[in-house]
Amino acid sequence: MKIETKTEHFTTPLYLESGRIIEPYQIRYETYGEMNEDASNVVLICHALSGSQHAAGLYEGDRKPGWWDGLIGDGKAIDTTKHFVISTNVIGSCFGSTGPMSNNYPSDKPYRLKFPVVTIKDMIKAQKQLLSNLGIYHLKAIVGGSMGGMQALQFAVDYPNFADKIITMAATYATQPWAIAFNKVAMEAIRRDPEFKNGQYARDAFKEKGIDGLAIGRIAGHISYLSPHSMQEKFGLNYVNHDGLFELFGRYEVERYMEYNTDNFSKLFDPLSYLYIVKAINTFNLGRGYDSLYEAILRIKAEVTLISFKSDYLFFPQEMEHIHNMMQRNGQDSIYHPIDSDYGHDAFLVELDKFEAIVKETLEKE
Amino acid sequence: MKIETKTEHFTTPLYLESGRIIEPYQIRYETYGEMNEDASNVVLICHALSGSQHAAGLYEGDRKPGWWDGLIGDGKAIDTTKHFVISTNVIGSCFGSTGPMSNNYPSDKPYRLKFPVVTIKDMIKAQKQLLSNLGIYHLKAIVGGSMGGMQALQFAVDYPNFADKIITMAATYATQPWAIAFNKVAMEAIRRDPEFKNGQYARDAFKEKGIDGLAIGRIAGHISYLSPHSMQEKFGLNYVNHDGLFELFGRYEVERYMEYNTDNFSKLFDPLSYLYIVKAINTFNLGRGYDSLYEAILRIKAEVTLISFKSDYLFFPQEMEHIHNMMQRNGQDSIYHPIDSDYGHDAFLVELDKFEAIVKETLEKE
Repeated sequence: MKIETKTEHFTTPLYLESGRIIEPYQIRYETYGEMNEDASNVVLICHALSGSQHAAGLYEGDRKPGWWDGLIGDGKAIDTTKHFVISTNVIGSCFGSTGPMSNNYPSDKPYRLKFPVVTIKDMIKAQKQLLSNLGIYHLKAIVGGSMGGMQALQFAVDYPNFADKIITMAATYATQPWAIAFNKVAMEAIRRDPEFKNGQYARDAFKEKGIDGLAIGRIAGHISYLSPHSMQEKFGLNYVNHDGLFELFGRYEVERYMEYNTDNFSKLFDPLSYLYIVKAINTFNLGRGYDSLYEAILRIKAEVTLISFKSDYLFFPQEMEHIHNMMQRNGQDSIYHPIDSDYGHDAFLVELDKFEAIVKETLEKE
Repeated sequence: MKIETKTEHFTTPLYLESGRIIEPYQIRYETYGEMNEDASNVVLICHALSGSQHAAGLYEGDRKPGWWDGLIGDGKAIDTTKHFVISTNVIGSCFGSTGPMSNNYPSDKPYRLKFPVVTIKDMIKAQKQLLSNLGIYHLKAIVGGSMGGMQALQFAVDYPNFADKIITMAATYATQPWAIAFNKVAMEAIRRDPEFKNGQYARDAFKEKGIDGLAIGRIAGHISYLSPHSMQEKFGLNYVNHDGLFELFGRYEVERYMEYNTDNFSKLFDPLSYLYIVKAINTFNLGRGYDSLYEAILRIKAEVTLISFKSDYLFFPQEMEHIHNMMQRNGQDSIYHPIDSDYGHDAFLVELDKFEAIVKETLEKE
């Protein structure tokens, strides 16, 4: 599989949903496989909150491959011998695309909290610009989970003629208060962390020991990515130290999991980017900008494959089913796959065997 | 209704489940109504994580009455013209019973993190001592919700001949990883808060502006006390500022709710006590100390009324049903009431009309 990593610089302004403008800006992206002659094999991958453009392949020196490496590659569900796959880092993120720690041109100082609020609609607008610059005016498919699934849906609504198919997983039509409340833990924990310094922390200060506020917020996140049942299966009531005598003083395995994952994460992710992306998720609402959710969904012309996971405690299956039901009533082309899974919201990242056949078939059927 | 508030001082040691000893200690408690001649009308009330002995009545100058005032009083479900009600503050708490900020005798310095881990079993042991000191060797009933429901169950297991009836709501037979994970947010947020100073904060330092770590942890708590549906009903996707132009920058009502409730709470509750009580909840397991959960439950002789709320996302109805099913198989005396409620775990505090008739009938039938 041919992998390339590139950065596209835009000197044209990015007009945001809020009315604000980002100028100039850049988008970092990776590509897998090769484009065919008539550019009819392009698949766009959209990442989730903590993801990046690095969806597939293993870089030298890295312990882990891209976040959807099991799904994307030669002979895999998103087959790079057949498709040319593009994966971009969303605007607002911290892996090479313009975000709050980018310089606020023409100054040589980062935006920090002066970075404008960006939305899912803004993220895909920037991706659309990137694709135009690359001479791509039509996509075979757009695939994403969670926030990536929101982007796929927003593409289908905003640009009805752009993609033939979209595959959206573990997402929703509009972020609900339950999810917003989980995000609130992260927002408050970061905002109130003295190390955050109201956004004036030293660039990359978090890389050495991580910012506690982000780690704490991430614990709340990890609760929402799992489910009561998946936690019982995964951790039970086991203690890290199995010596019964010390049980009462010990840590549970579920506690260790939370510590380990969140402390590591807080060294990898810029806290300001986290705040901005969480805000984009919170404000996601397919109906905004249209007369109603119904009118927004009525615009869709792509074939929409909706995949939900029964144990998803963040974006509940009913939310995906709601989209499917609306499309069905309108006679639009939608297929709904509720997947039996114990992995909760995380299933879209970890239980690939439960849906890779659906993805492969959707992409390869005529 | 006659209300009295008293403190009982114990010079005998309290032997804890961990092997540690607290000596001396004290328990703060309130009583409502009057004991009859043969002490056969005594009902014990057990409070939840954030509760206190102040379950009923309105004190002069207070804006709010006790946390179960709607349930306890003359003519109410727990009728104080008929019953003598005792409500104690649990050991480890911060409303007058011995806790981590009590002096570590014989020094005049508080225990702080040297306070031993206490468990639900320890809490009820202290309550049992109090009742003995008051000359009460048998209870008509024990009633509690959430952590209070755990205490009621633990009483029924540990002292099978002590109470005729127990009524337990929104509790479980053993705290599961899902609940432990929510508590982990609070534990880490408090522990990592620089104001917490590793437990060496000034006494009552939190009263002026609250400790951020507790407020953040409490946001996670409030998520678990509500439910996806109750949040949709209560907040929808409304913004605090309804001016459409500023929507993208605004706060959602669910966010304001979290801020308001948690900032207030963090001024009222001692952060060390919070850590200790959360630990007691985490380690709650009815089976511990017995050969198995089955053997523990088999000990129960009281009539057990189990009330669960269908939208409880903290202690799921199945957990209560599990106790009922075990008791039924053993031919023990249990009644299970799954209540239809949209209020989530909080229902035991706010939807009294859904279960007060059950409580009244249970207490008053012969």
